[in-house]
Amino acid sequence: MAGLESWHDGAAKAAIVDFVGRAVRDVAPQERVAVFDNDGTLWCEKPAYIQLDFLVRRLAEQVAADPTLTDNPAYRAAAAGDLAWFGDAVTQHYNGDDSALKVLAGAVLSAYAGLTVEEHAERVNAFFADATHPTLGVPYTACGYRPMVELLQYLEAHGFTNYIASGGGRDFMRPITTQMYGVPPERVIGSSVGLDFVDGNLKTTSTPEFLNDGPVKAVRIWGRVGRRPIFAAGNSNGDIAMMEYATAAPNPSLALLVRHDDGEREFDYVAGAEKSLQLAEANGWTVASMRNDWTTVFDGR
Amino acid sequence: MAGLESWHDGAAKAAIVDFVGRAVRDVAPQERVAVFDNDGTLWCEKPAYIQLDFLVRRLAEQVAADPTLTDNPAYRAAAAGDLAWFGDAVTQHYNGDDSALKVLAGAVLSAYAGLTVEEHAERVNAFFADATHPTLGVPYTACGYRPMVELLQYLEAHGFTNYIASGGGRDFMRPITTQMYGVPPERVIGSSVGLDFVDGNLKTTSTPEFLNDGPVKAVRIWGRVGRRPIFAAGNSNGDIAMMEYATAAPNPSLALLVRHDDGEREFDYVAGAEKSLQLAEANGWTVASMRNDWTTVFDGR
Repeated sequence: MAGLESWHDGAAKAAIVDFVGRAVRDVAPQERVAVFDNDGTLWCEKPAYIQLDFLVRRLAEQVAADPTLTDNPAYRAAAAGDLAWFGDAVTQHYNGDDSALKVLAGAVLSAYAGLTVEEHAERVNAFFADATHPTLGVPYTACGYRPMVELLQYLEAHGFTNYIASGGGRDFMRPITTQMYGVPPERVIGSSVGLDFVDGNLKTTSTPEFLNDGPVKAVRIWGRVGRRPIFAAGNSNGDIAMMEYATAAPNPSLALLVRHDDGEREFDYVAGAEKSLQLAEANGWTVASMRNDWTTVFDGR
Repeated sequence: MAGLESWHDGAAKAAIVDFVGRAVRDVAPQERVAVFDNDGTLWCEKPAYIQLDFLVRRLAEQVAADPTLTDNPAYRAAAAGDLAWFGDAVTQHYNGDDSALKVLAGAVLSAYAGLTVEEHAERVNAFFADATHPTLGVPYTACGYRPMVELLQYLEAHGFTNYIASGGGRDFMRPITTQMYGVPPERVIGSSVGLDFVDGNLKTTSTPEFLNDGPVKAVRIWGRVGRRPIFAAGNSNGDIAMMEYATAAPNPSLALLVRHDDGEREFDYVAGAEKSLQLAEANGWTVASMRNDWTTVFDGR
């Protein structure tokens, strides 16, 4: 049976093993539903969301084909390879200034508009076949956290069904989640633009359909699964609602919060996770410290 | 292996058997996705949608508790047990007059508002434990079509994964689809009101989130599954898009249209299915005639 080899013996591992034991004893297999955030929980989200690289490459491609787009600061930043501009737009948003984010959103939403979902998947596959992480220097598909992949396998070995519930793009994740996490497309919940049905095919639009973050994660999990999860793992304020959702029922349950406190092996940051860390303490959620609980962060290194 | 015992040997059965043989040969198991409409395809939808009974009972309960509601014709009809009023509202809608439907929609959307999804499921279970079909005189859970249940089992036995994609309420169907069809909640796609996340629980609102009909079925199937189905079964114009979606790709595929032409054993009607029957002929979709293709309509009778 799959173990948790990359977890130090400690409070986090003990809480997981204890919870799984109670779930196996008290919860029917079909009700053993586990949900995982992706960015920062299953794979690395720094220095920028991996999906942002996918989007910025497309903006650079578009502005190369149509130089008039440089009038728009998002395309200009993309053409210049200025990823910091995009990160700043998100930071400004968290500080209450949405002006740059609005410029960015328009470009991002239209970046892949008009493709069939199959064509979009081909672009995603081409991206992952080619792109490498800017500081780790390995393919993005090697940027999953080994202890979390072991946890996915450990839960599955104990009759759980794992879902991903991420703020990232549903159709951006689907092509690689089977390979990276053993989670097939039908168990990937994420954000999406609207789709149009045209001549027997589904095509992406530039209209947002929903942003799968915060309380929307709980709504989308129910919409997809029709069961309340008993396990939820996240790493940020956007995961609070699904962690509350998983732990509000009388069944055995566990909420696991990944803490990014390992500047040597990964990154050290709390921005965007402040409230979730407070609630973890207040509610007794389990915190997995990258530095203290994980013997290895990434597979093979 | 499960067979198709309630199907006469004929063109429809032959087309199914031939298709399944080609799918098993040419399509990887994870891509063998089948989608089924529910009302009129898996269970009886006449003389009225089963869910309408569930809603009208609730309206009658509400007007009994608050007699001022009789000012509203929908509650008045519910109190009087006048199901025909509701049927007429739908017919008028199809004839271009939405006035009664709008009155009806407001009442229907608010009928179960404010419940947690678990409380709503309890109401659904209580309804199915109690209610019987008005003309067939059996519990609604005995109103599934035996040949279609055999088809679900036949596909599953050949490595298919079955989903329901219905215009009916997602959370109205979920409590009984495992028992009736062997389809668990996570594979039920249907219409829904919006849900609010409140104190760790999900509660129904009176705001429609989406109506899972027509092209929306194709969008929702992709959203849920992340794969294009290769088999789609329906019985009405609302199923055209998903049948086109399933058959537009190069893989072996089958679209099956149930024709209600058996006034003795079930009902004989084409209203709402006119265009789908035309397209079935034009596109070579398989038509299953209740009268000619099914040896038995309902289990045990």
